[in-house]
Amino acid sequence: MENCIFCKLANGEIPTNTVYEDENYRVIMDANPANIGHSLVLPKKHGKDIFELDSETVAGAHALAKKVAEAAKKALDADGINILQNNGESAGQTVMHFHIHVIPRFKNDWPSMPMHQSGATDEETKAACAKIGEFMK
Amino acid sequence: MENCIFCKLANGEIPTNTVYEDENYRVIMDANPANIGHSLVLPKKHGKDIFELDSETVAGAHALAKKVAEAAKKALDADGINILQNNGESAGQTVMHFHIHVIPRFKNDWPSMPMHQSGATDEETKAACAKIGEFMK
Repeated sequence: MENCIFCKLANGEIPTNTVYEDENYRVIMDANPANIGHSLVLPKKHGKDIFELDSETVAGAHALAKKVAEAAKKALDADGINILQNNGESAGQTVMHFHIHVIPRFKNDWPSMPMHQSGATDEETKAACAKIGEFMK
Repeated sequence: MENCIFCKLANGEIPTNTVYEDENYRVIMDANPANIGHSLVLPKKHGKDIFELDSETVAGAHALAKKVAEAAKKALDADGINILQNNGESAGQTVMHFHIHVIPRFKNDWPSMPMHQSGATDEETKAACAKIGEFMK
């Protein structure tokens, strides 16, 4: 897509640190890394998020993220790996082209991700379960 | 696997709030939700993390996570969705059975995930890129 920085990076129009490339994906180093070896799996096809991208491309990107996680673990002797994929500004997405973060972690460097700020009561959880379940039918 | 709480939940040995179930996966509500509608995609097959689980099961879990994200967005009118999958204690994994977090987000509730605490210099990034690339060949 015109004026999409990740389209340009994924398709080689702008040179960048590339870990891996094939017909459908490019894996690059994050320009603002959370940790040493923080990489991004980019589909070459544009889709702004998990909603816009087709299921096959999403699944393929995650199969590739597994390979990258395995490579990063071995290459950097990492203790753990976070796989993170954000959709929407309210979820922290800053570039509107689907991408998967592969972030190596080492002992004692886990930043205690503050996932549990909002929370939900048991009643809210049961109600949400039923509502989401309706849309899974 | 014996004594694995997520094996028991995924395979229905312990009842829980279930959003979806098929032959290979169960989607349940997180018992300690980060937000309303926070669900977990669990493979019924045991694998402690992305390294132990086969690629097909990982990719299938993420294709299902896409469906759950779409359902949660519609059902709860969410503005965004985080897809998070942690591997290893140092990455914040607390239950040693592969699972994907699907976390709905709403305007102004993003907890500014502190991903950028450790960082890496440009030289460290280039070196990591080359090292990881070696293991992708």
